Amino acid sequence: MKIAMAQLNFHIGNFDGNVQKMLDAVQEAKAQKADIVCFSELATCGYPPRDFLEFDDFIDLAEKAIKKLAKAAKGIAIAVGSPSRNPVPEGKDLYNSAYFLVEGKVKHIQHKALLPTYDIFDEYRYFEPASTFETVTFKGKKIALTVCEDIWNIGNENPLYTVCPMDELMPQGPDFMINLSASPFNYNHATTRIGILKANTKRYKVPIFYINHAGAQTEILFDGGSIVMSPNGKVYDEMPYFQECIKTYDLEAVQKNKKETVQAKDKMTLIHDGIVMGIKDYFGKLGFKRAILGLSGGIDSAVTAVLAARALGPNNVRAVLMPSEFSSDHSINDARNLAMNLGIQYDIIPIQPAFESFKGLLGPHFAGTKFGLAEENIQARTRGVLLMALSNKFGNILLNTSNKSEAAVGYGTLYGDMCGGLSVIGDVYKMEVFELARFINKDGEVIPENTITKPPSAELRPDQKDSDSLPEYDVLDPILYHYIEGRKSPKDIIKMGYDKKLVHRILRLVNINEFKRYQTPPMIRVSAKAFGMGRRMPIVGKYLS
Amino acid sequence: MKIAMAQLNFHIGNFDGNVQKMLDAVQEAKAQKADIVCFSELATCGYPPRDFLEFDDFIDLAEKAIKKLAKAAKGIAIAVGSPSRNPVPEGKDLYNSAYFLVEGKVKHIQHKALLPTYDIFDEYRYFEPASTFETVTFKGKKIALTVCEDIWNIGNENPLYTVCPMDELMPQGPDFMINLSASPFNYNHATTRIGILKANTKRYKVPIFYINHAGAQTEILFDGGSIVMSPNGKVYDEMPYFQECIKTYDLEAVQKNKKETVQAKDKMTLIHDGIVMGIKDYFGKLGFKRAILGLSGGIDSAVTAVLAARALGPNNVRAVLMPSEFSSDHSINDARNLAMNLGIQYDIIPIQPAFESFKGLLGPHFAGTKFGLAEENIQARTRGVLLMALSNKFGNILLNTSNKSEAAVGYGTLYGDMCGGLSVIGDVYKMEVFELARFINKDGEVIPENTITKPPSAELRPDQKDSDSLPEYDVLDPILYHYIEGRKSPKDIIKMGYDKKLVHRILRLVNINEFKRYQTPPMIRVSAKAFGMGRRMPIVGKYLS
Repeated sequence: MKIAMAQLNFHIGNFDGNVQKMLDAVQEAKAQKADIVCFSELATCGYPPRDFLEFDDFIDLAEKAIKKLAKAAKGIAIAVGSPSRNPVPEGKDLYNSAYFLVEGKVKHIQHKALLPTYDIFDEYRYFEPASTFETVTFKGKKIALTVCEDIWNIGNENPLYTVCPMDELMPQGPDFMINLSASPFNYNHATTRIGILKANTKRYKVPIFYINHAGAQTEILFDGGSIVMSPNGKVYDEMPYFQECIKTYDLEAVQKNKKETVQAKDKMTLIHDGIVMGIKDYFGKLGFKRAILGLSGGIDSAVTAVLAARALGPNNVRAVLMPSEFSSDHSINDARNLAMNLGIQYDIIPIQPAFESFKGLLGPHFAGTKFGLAEENIQARTRGVLLMALSNKFGNILLNTSNKSEAAVGYGTLYGDMCGGLSVIGDVYKMEVFELARFINKDGEVIPENTITKPPSAELRPDQKDSDSLPEYDVLDPILYHYIEGRKSPKDIIKMGYDKKLVHRILRLVNINEFKRYQTPPMIRVSAKAFGMGRRMPIVGKYLS
Repeated sequence: MKIAMAQLNFHIGNFDGNVQKMLDAVQEAKAQKADIVCFSELATCGYPPRDFLEFDDFIDLAEKAIKKLAKAAKGIAIAVGSPSRNPVPEGKDLYNSAYFLVEGKVKHIQHKALLPTYDIFDEYRYFEPASTFETVTFKGKKIALTVCEDIWNIGNENPLYTVCPMDELMPQGPDFMINLSASPFNYNHATTRIGILKANTKRYKVPIFYINHAGAQTEILFDGGSIVMSPNGKVYDEMPYFQECIKTYDLEAVQKNKKETVQAKDKMTLIHDGIVMGIKDYFGKLGFKRAILGLSGGIDSAVTAVLAARALGPNNVRAVLMPSEFSSDHSINDARNLAMNLGIQYDIIPIQPAFESFKGLLGPHFAGTKFGLAEENIQARTRGVLLMALSNKFGNILLNTSNKSEAAVGYGTLYGDMCGGLSVIGDVYKMEVFELARFINKDGEVIPENTITKPPSAELRPDQKDSDSLPEYDVLDPILYHYIEGRKSPKDIIKMGYDKKLVHRILRLVNINEFKRYQTPPMIRVSAKAFGMGRRMPIVGKYLS
């Protein structure tokens, strides 16, 4: 028996596009002589469809998509994820289901039992968990169908859940398992995923065909990396990261296999490639082509520009250099050098006239006050106005260049440098931005060396440095990591050896800046705990503030 | 037996403040000769605490709060909501619990069984549902303790749930029920709530002491309106809306009662009073006093200014009038008249110089293009810069003045009129804004009549009217309502008699503007389906776009 894995990039709510992509894949799988072709979780409607699931009409469209796919299941079986209606009134209205389509018909439906409801996941908001488990027989083979999280509670050892779907299915003696996933990327996920699959084969001793989504939905990346596991726990094959791929595997060869084939999992490569896909899909799925961004000469906008140029092509990226009286000479030079290295269009628009105009208008109202935060922010917001004007006029999406460290402590101007349709490196700590810059330059200078080595500065007042307001990033970032990713208490973090006053100051900054993060653009998620839908905090909270 | 209902305003994560408020209430209840005093759901930590619940340290603080309250439970019992730890590793780490504290000790804990996970609710993200149900006996009376949603599945008729906690508790023969709630307001909620309580007494024939939170947490309002139900289904008393109140009831009198005492539930009164509380609490809980807003002479900013002045006091509200070359004469006059009627500070800052300055800077880049959206947005954003500069300089929070109709179709400028720390009327459709203005003027003109009667206009180009871009609001609003609140399909809405092309155009606008709403300030929620945490939509979704 031959099984085709179709690792594809679906688009939420784009039923026609998703179905067409699957119909093409069915043809390709047939050409590859496959008996079964597998698609990922909720492939018809895209994952995560979020509250679109509450529209009856949306579910109707998903059902129509399944009918079209069933018609195409001639001479080949299709395993595909799609929402299905719960026929009984009790419980949630929907299931998150794996369909098995054969010869024009739905031969079998297995619902998902384990519904992740943490971090970015809201599945219990929509779905009823499966209560029955059945294998499906096709061409003499018994197949255990599971959906994503269903294989993450091996032998009931995951404390989150009380059911283990594979423990329920094993008594029926499946010959192999197909898992339909839409498992979001983070830079550790590929390693974790292989660990989970190995643990599954160790317990169940059957081949596993784990098919993952490959593509971005707004800020959430799915890295693909679909896996075929031999029953002995060796990875028979791992499909590429961050790209579509259709490949057919021979069941017998998978069963007999003794070798292991896995890809390298370098953190910076993964973050780099993931963000590039994230930008590409954000633009592609919204129907845009061109980006605009402000280039300050600093490292954040430099890294953002490189990633954008790689995602969209240099011709589709426009940079604007907007010096002020506080910009240093090297800033403009560094920014210009970068733009020239990348081959992207750049324009220089000095902000001084608009800044003066605002100072003039506000003069009578600001009388007797000193130059301060308000004046610094006017500069950042003037840049925002200019960038958005160009964006509106020419149809470019503005890219936000803030990093995770800044976003965490609120070191940024709302409606100023916090503008943008998409935050490119908002889930990358400053120290990681440096690493990423070095990674980008590994085969030759793309980002000017001076951009990487000079002390970070917002350049909104004379001789300003980030370190005037914040501790050095090599101290700040670990504290943030322990609080955000680690959810440690101030006491725990102080015990690790960090200064008490500093820890309290930093954690307070994180909490009192929730109002700012509420209004930031979606941030491409590369860590296991990103700002945005995965971290839901009250604005008026008093805890640690 | 006497039961005190302490309907209080708690603050998320403000354990010291919340405990002190409850200790004061315990004294007051004792003075009122109460045997038991009841507080609302998750009173120790405030509701909804959201992801703070994932911090061990936060739960430690909740446990310490319970210890302090238990110590105060001398000569009086305390019923209070607080998170509690799940002692077994299986399942979620926490319960949402009702504690019953007597003579320094925790006498009983009943966990919540029905965990709302829809709209603004995420309880299954954090909590394990109760699996056991027990009454607690105090001074010879058996008490059924329930938490909020637990009484919303009467006799298992709510299709969302499969357990009915009161059905489980009734065999133990409770003398009465206490329900600890934090039940969010919408303008229909008080009526719905009384219906649910009546249905409970009809089935269970015991008195119910339903104690609700009264206060706002960022955008979510809790209206109080706590209820004492007689076993015959009559409302013995309904506590006031949107304010704190401590009142003690005699159980025997409640049992014998034959009268019904309820408050009027006028939609505009509720929306008005709710928003006023929402503004007040947002400022109070963040530690701010003063607001700033732009007054355009239009109805949205006028209504916002009135509500702000009523919430914070006229001395704490500052208005800025920012005319441009496209402003009509009446705009400035209407805005000035309103400011004078309200007795709030106002300043006039014409935006022309900054607008000219931007046009000058962008001139070479805009060469050959026509005046359009980009130029309109520059004006709105110039106003945003001015307002934020004043906000930054003087520590006022900027109030956003967008309404729900605009927010729905994206008729607003991101980083322009969409700026602000809090959206005051973002959950109020334009037609309702007119109603609210009439309501405000019911005892005499506060909002100038001309502001109410003139055709709505953004005044960003010559002779602009909202109706140039949008259908009339009496057509637009119902279509939006059916799509947003009703979750109807285009087909359903067209069947109701609306023009097909128009329906498709409007629904498309709603969906393609998700990226804008992602960056709007939190909107005070007054309807059953508000933008924000209650409506979670993908940005890159293709459905209907």
